[in-house]
Amino acid sequence: MKYGARNRTRATVKSIRKGDIMSLVKFTVSDPHEMASVLTSESVSDLDLKAGEQVELIIKAIHVLPVKD
Amino acid sequence: MKYGARNRTRATVKSIRKGDIMSLVKFTVSDPHEMASVLTSESVSDLDLKAGEQVELIIKAIHVLPVKD
Amino acid sequence: MKYGARNRTRATVKSIRKGDIMSLVKFTVSDPHEMASVLTSESVSDLDLKAGEQVELIIKAIHVLPVKD
Amino acid sequence: MKYGARNRTRATVKSIRKGDIMSLVKFTVSDPHEMASVLTSESVSDLDLKAGEQVELIIKAIHVLPVKD
Amino acid sequence: MKYGARNRTRATVKSIRKGDIMSLVKFTVSDPHEMASVLTSESVSDLDLKAGEQVELIIKAIHVLPVKD
Amino acid sequence: MKYGARNRTRATVKSIRKGDIMSLVKFTVSDPHEMASVLTSESVSDLDLKAGEQVELIIKAIHVLPVKD
Repeated sequence: MKYGARNRTRATVKSIRKGDIMSLVKFTVSDPHEMASVLTSESVSDLDLKAGEQVELIIKAIHVLPVKD
Repeated sequence: MKYGARNRTRATVKSIRKGDIMSLVKFTVSDPHEMASVLTSESVSDLDLKAGEQVELIIKAIHVLPVKD
Repeated sequence: MKYGARNRTRATVKSIRKGDIMSLVKFTVSDPHEMASVLTSESVSDLDLKAGEQVELIIKAIHVLPVKD
Repeated sequence: MKYGARNRTRATVKSIRKGDIMSLVKFTVSDPHEMASVLTSESVSDLDLKAGEQVELIIKAIHVLPVKD
Repeated sequence: MKYGARNRTRATVKSIRKGDIMSLVKFTVSDPHEMASVLTSESVSDLDLKAGEQVELIIKAIHVLPVKD
Repeated sequence: MKYGARNRTRATVKSIRKGDIMSLVKFTVSDPHEMASVLTSESVSDLDLKAGEQVELIIKAIHVLPVKD
């Protein structure tokens, strides 16, 4: 698959906190680095995510904010 | 500084392509991993980014899209 | 593929206006409906988009703004 | 009204799942196509959305992600 | 009009820098405060924005990032 | 600190409604103007936000939608 986004990373599902409408999923990118995604709980069910599974994380470059001291 | 965002990463500026309105900046996160940010060229000037500089990349968790085979 | 997003649509590339940093791609969803995407020109090159091609458009539900008279 | 966004669609409210902070609203765009929006539950109250009502869905082109096999 | 977004502000167009694909528009919110929007140059043409005009700026709450020292 | 974003505003925390996964925080910008942010409840805890505190609100220009009558 090819995505219209500059950032993609292989990641492993670390934990899933499923709320009523929105869920928070945490990923291990390369130990000990961790990333988080918020998505609808429906999407979490459709993806059928389980801790330890491999996924890919896609982030459009427009959503990356650089900060400098 | 504390940010209202789940994802933050130390990164090094790798390259800057400055357009008229928007610019594309690439970062080395941990070699050989790379991330990209699109921001206004005005922001690039204000940040005064130069290749090799250290910045922090902030991404709200809502902008991370998990994909699964 | 399964995406952590509520909205996905089959679409046909209608036109591509490639700028230096950002590009504007238009899609026919179901005639005469049209959708537009802005992405980096690098992503357009990587996707190797051509008018008439089939793609899928993914939109996270958080980015859909309802408006009512 | 004129919007600074490339995508706008007439849509009908299909269902509303209202959570404490965030809500998930589903729309019929043109049967059987469906779209979803996540917004604050406060916004859902202010819009006073009811199943069967007509709204317009606005999406900035920057939030549309093309994917290709 | 009612919007599915928590933030809306009356604003006056201060300047428009129109690029090939994307444009940068600056607004005076309440002097001397200023806000900026990036949108497609097509949207700027459709809105027919001119310096001094009144518009409304809509921002979904999910896109507001709080930062604390 | 310098941010890769065009919009930043000093603001005062007015109220916090903390949900299971997502929270809604309201700010006074300059009385009686108010802004709202949705972020993960984890981020609210990390920021340790309290009503009356000073924060800065960062918004990328790409997320500002101009609307005109």
